[in-house]
Amino acid sequence: MARLSFYYSAMNAGKTTGLLQSAHNYRERGLTALVYLPAADTRAGQGVVRSRIGVECPAHTFDTHHDLYADIQSRGDADCVFVDEAQFLTPQQVLQLTRVCDELDIPVRAYGLRTDFRGEPFAGSAYLLAWADELHEVVTVCRSGQNATMSARLDRDGQRATTGEQVDVGYHYEPMSRKLFDLSRVSPVGQPEKG
Amino acid sequence: MARLSFYYSAMNAGKTTGLLQSAHNYRERGLTALVYLPAADTRAGQGVVRSRIGVECPAHTFDTHHDLYADIQSRGDADCVFVDEAQFLTPQQVLQLTRVCDELDIPVRAYGLRTDFRGEPFAGSAYLLAWADELHEVVTVCRSGQNATMSARLDRDGQRATTGEQVDVGYHYEPMSRKLFDLSRVSPVGQPEKG
Amino acid sequence: MARLSFYYSAMNAGKTTGLLQSAHNYRERGLTALVYLPAADTRAGQGVVRSRIGVECPAHTFDTHHDLYADIQSRGDADCVFVDEAQFLTPQQVLQLTRVCDELDIPVRAYGLRTDFRGEPFAGSAYLLAWADELHEVVTVCRSGQNATMSARLDRDGQRATTGEQVDVGYHYEPMSRKLFDLSRVSPVGQPEKG
Amino acid sequence: MARLSFYYSAMNAGKTTGLLQSAHNYRERGLTALVYLPAADTRAGQGVVRSRIGVECPAHTFDTHHDLYADIQSRGDADCVFVDEAQFLTPQQVLQLTRVCDELDIPVRAYGLRTDFRGEPFAGSAYLLAWADELHEVVTVCRSGQNATMSARLDRDGQRATTGEQVDVGYHYEPMSRKLFDLSRVSPVGQPEKG
Repeated sequence: MARLSFYYSAMNAGKTTGLLQSAHNYRERGLTALVYLPAADTRAGQGVVRSRIGVECPAHTFDTHHDLYADIQSRGDADCVFVDEAQFLTPQQVLQLTRVCDELDIPVRAYGLRTDFRGEPFAGSAYLLAWADELHEVVTVCRSGQNATMSARLDRDGQRATTGEQVDVGYHYEPMSRKLFDLSRVSPVGQPEKG
Repeated sequence: MARLSFYYSAMNAGKTTGLLQSAHNYRERGLTALVYLPAADTRAGQGVVRSRIGVECPAHTFDTHHDLYADIQSRGDADCVFVDEAQFLTPQQVLQLTRVCDELDIPVRAYGLRTDFRGEPFAGSAYLLAWADELHEVVTVCRSGQNATMSARLDRDGQRATTGEQVDVGYHYEPMSRKLFDLSRVSPVGQPEKG
Repeated sequence: MARLSFYYSAMNAGKTTGLLQSAHNYRERGLTALVYLPAADTRAGQGVVRSRIGVECPAHTFDTHHDLYADIQSRGDADCVFVDEAQFLTPQQVLQLTRVCDELDIPVRAYGLRTDFRGEPFAGSAYLLAWADELHEVVTVCRSGQNATMSARLDRDGQRATTGEQVDVGYHYEPMSRKLFDLSRVSPVGQPEKG
Repeated sequence: MARLSFYYSAMNAGKTTGLLQSAHNYRERGLTALVYLPAADTRAGQGVVRSRIGVECPAHTFDTHHDLYADIQSRGDADCVFVDEAQFLTPQQVLQLTRVCDELDIPVRAYGLRTDFRGEPFAGSAYLLAWADELHEVVTVCRSGQNATMSARLDRDGQRATTGEQVDVGYHYEPMSRKLFDLSRVSPVGQPEKG
């Protein structure tokens, strides 16, 4: 039975490099790898997945209204489906991906962040964490030398930003240990008025 | 640095057995293990953790207003904290447990379900999945022979129940593969009117 | 495709408890679990697997000449095969278990130690570590509070024993961190004359 | 406490890409990453680690007589040590790396193959599998679509080679599932005269 795997990590850990390597492995064996990317992510150009260490490949794009099950089914036999920036999947799309595994018997590998700059789970990630067959951490390191599991938002002066929209490309993001990140300071969960 | 580990699984996989074995190991080495259980869980008597294969130990109970950080700190040096039925933690309590690791340097092991009878994440589990340092599946099996990652609610006639409160001990629960569970049928995410 | 899983740990971590819980889960679902134990292990009586926390079940025994593939095949449809004390498997028997997965499509779960009292790999474990589809640690704790991955041999006075036969039930064994275990002191690899 | 991690896989899975990404992450955070490579591996030039997808970095080389503990200690404070082609470590060098973790408190990440073209464990890998704190599979795929855990040797005509030296760069190697690899045919363990 095909499995749904979620490779999660903080920002800049190398998730995309892992995706590109794995898709490359499929193609090198003569197998078909479908690669998907949210349409909103145009950092490397429309429909291109690119890692920070300089490798890239073309990708199918999707927006939040896209039916991924129907799309994958219509493309015929794929050997594996890869999804980059999977935190931006809607819960419905995560459900569609479980059906790609369970009904079409095609393995799915989703790569994404667990949480945003305040430590809140992304909606897509919350359902991937809940429903995936396999959860794998892509480990990265904090400036403190400890594992970095959170992603801090920094402004142009390197100051920590703790409010704002969930997605904002006008900032820099730094992988950070949970200790240094300090959930008590930035998480809505830690605020008395919102608890 | 102490780590927060979440051992997740479907119902009846043996999470509590794992907790009891691990707490036993600490005590056998002369170390202190604190065991916590939600006060609402009185299946084995108030303040007792019991596994289906017949082992048990006393536990500290907590309700949703309990400050677990303050409680653990006040008990002095513990070598490890165990939490059973951790899906019932509030997000605030999960945050408190991250502080037990990061500030008190005491490892925490939480055992719980990822999702309820409709496939929805429990609030405590959503935050454990988002913030834990380690995620471990306690594997169990579906009647189909595949891995069971979901928990189906069955009434007295063995018929599937797909509506009702999130917690209801008047039913039987069966570990089930995601395929047999059929999220499209029971998940609020799969319903057009709620999508 | 069925998978071969190796659950490894130090002595007294709860491997057998895990095996018994998992076999129980199969039977509770109406599935067939075959449990195997080396004939030489008669601690709980001939052909009985028993965990330190007090649960047990009957087991098929095997010696080093036993063909496990033929034996499992002859017993008809099993849903899962469990092997306790798997470090005592011969390399040939590990190969037979890979064929149980790959040819009979029956999953196999082997539970055992990685290394002996001097840190040397057991022959069966070396091949399980090399060929298994999944490697899972059954975590336990050292008296130092760190993870215990090694098994130290202690005599009746609690003194460390560093020489002798690989198997000797006349001693006590204590799970120990690699740091406290001190491979440089006890491992044949660390000895200049044998390097 | 620093941990020794072994990232293992079949040939051509992307181990080196993972190593390079991870070392890059350390340097991006302002931390020091030491990268080691066996001197015998000169595929990318002497002292260069290069992945198949086109990234590379310089590396310290070592031969089988090199004391890695002394070497790492002499280089001053490192934040992490990376070892590529770790299957070629001697057991003594693996022991030295455990001391780098346990005595110098520097984490070590070793990347390598578990087994050779006949399915036999490499000596370095056998001890890494026995002593590492963490074992992680770098997953890759077989032409059959299943996970590839073995590495088959093929001659220029694409025919399977089943005899010869353990290391021979005059052949092509293909990642292969254990089923297609067929241990019964190529493993010394499977041969009656050697059993």
